[in-house]
Amino acid sequence: MLTLILGGARSGKSALAERLAIDSGREVAYVATAQALDGEMASRIAHHRERRPTEWLCVEEPLALADTLRRHARESRFVLVDCLTLWLSNLLGLAEGSRFAAEREAFLDTVSMLPGDIVFVSNEVGLGITPLGELTRRFVDEAGRLHQTLAQRCDRVVFVAAGLPLILKGTLP
Amino acid sequence: MLTLILGGARSGKSALAERLAIDSGREVAYVATAQALDGEMASRIAHHRERRPTEWLCVEEPLALADTLRRHARESRFVLVDCLTLWLSNLLGLAEGSRFAAEREAFLDTVSMLPGDIVFVSNEVGLGITPLGELTRRFVDEAGRLHQTLAQRCDRVVFVAAGLPLILKGTLP
Amino acid sequence: MLTLILGGARSGKSALAERLAIDSGREVAYVATAQALDGEMASRIAHHRERRPTEWLCVEEPLALADTLRRHARESRFVLVDCLTLWLSNLLGLAEGSRFAAEREAFLDTVSMLPGDIVFVSNEVGLGITPLGELTRRFVDEAGRLHQTLAQRCDRVVFVAAGLPLILKGTLP
Repeated sequence: MLTLILGGARSGKSALAERLAIDSGREVAYVATAQALDGEMASRIAHHRERRPTEWLCVEEPLALADTLRRHARESRFVLVDCLTLWLSNLLGLAEGSRFAAEREAFLDTVSMLPGDIVFVSNEVGLGITPLGELTRRFVDEAGRLHQTLAQRCDRVVFVAAGLPLILKGTLP
Repeated sequence: MLTLILGGARSGKSALAERLAIDSGREVAYVATAQALDGEMASRIAHHRERRPTEWLCVEEPLALADTLRRHARESRFVLVDCLTLWLSNLLGLAEGSRFAAEREAFLDTVSMLPGDIVFVSNEVGLGITPLGELTRRFVDEAGRLHQTLAQRCDRVVFVAAGLPLILKGTLP
Repeated sequence: MLTLILGGARSGKSALAERLAIDSGREVAYVATAQALDGEMASRIAHHRERRPTEWLCVEEPLALADTLRRHARESRFVLVDCLTLWLSNLLGLAEGSRFAAEREAFLDTVSMLPGDIVFVSNEVGLGITPLGELTRRFVDEAGRLHQTLAQRCDRVVFVAAGLPLILKGTLP
């Protein structure tokens, strides 16, 4: 079963995903896409890490998401990917522009064929005024397109605000 | 029947409006408010145009929306306006400040009296931090006010995220 | 009963809160957190003030919210706080950093123990690209965290778009 959890900054989307993982009663693999490139990011990553049960398998992968999912998804597992927007941002920041399209396509091709339960966390970033800059607009466009395409492949899509879920597709347990 | 479709950038709001137009089985008039002032905008317009059925009547009108709707709305037609935020932005960019208020009033006065089905697509832009600049804040304020007033006149209001609809008012077929 | 009303700029969240206040049939105390530091803000405050019934008790308090609520909440009263995001912004702007944590904690400790009906209005600001600046990111983070924590303590949480409510928790009359 595939689930997409969308929400704003500090909306409680990761906490909802983590609750679904714990409630599943399954072995959990946590895929972190964040890169600790500066102190602020390092402290955000540490904050997320403290919250996670120590028995979870943690995998850090900023770029090769399709490959990481193929290696770690199992029928008996719950895989939590947090988050797609950082993964997109990492890919769009690469000098090698073609890698973005290749990784995106590999991800969307792979995702429907994976075994087990997978939850994707992603930031909704398109509901404000987009600040100037071509890369920023590109990021907002690519995030929106990815969410639309992934939502079609997901069994469940949830929008989170103030820690509370609004169901866009499927049902929550 | 009047419908307002709100959503973020690349949320799938135009695609939902286009699906409603096609599913209506009626003759469709498409009112585009975009102006191709630069290469990026021209490419966005071209991207939208490629997706539209060739038999649709396409009208480009960046400013005089009330007048355009009066000329093209018919009992037998489905009119799709994409999008109101660009129309607002075009009006707010005019040197002649009074034109904005006049066009806005004409639009809101006209809209409830038009025959046939009309769908308005508009961007929700007020859910992030608004970047500095008086014109930007004005734009966000005017867009929010327009959405509130228009929503009262509409039979159906839908918020779209990740290509999926959340009904705010009325029902979807 | 505690209610949190979230929404974007000019989404109609204050108008919904004011309608709930009027429909309650109770004596209303209105707590304004805005400070008229410039002409634009003064005109926004005046716009809100014109809309409010003259018999409402109006209290202006930019910082000491917990204390203000303790003094003004009564079993027979409806208290409307507009808005939490300006209160947060006022606190984060103080040179004395510790005041923010103290006021925030006092507010969250107090809120569940207050008598009567209280409605909090707050801006959702985390659904767009956050412009550069550490203080801006801090503000977005703190607003999101406050909304999550407060939403747990509230009986009713509503998201407003285009003047129309989406219920996140509880029910609307």
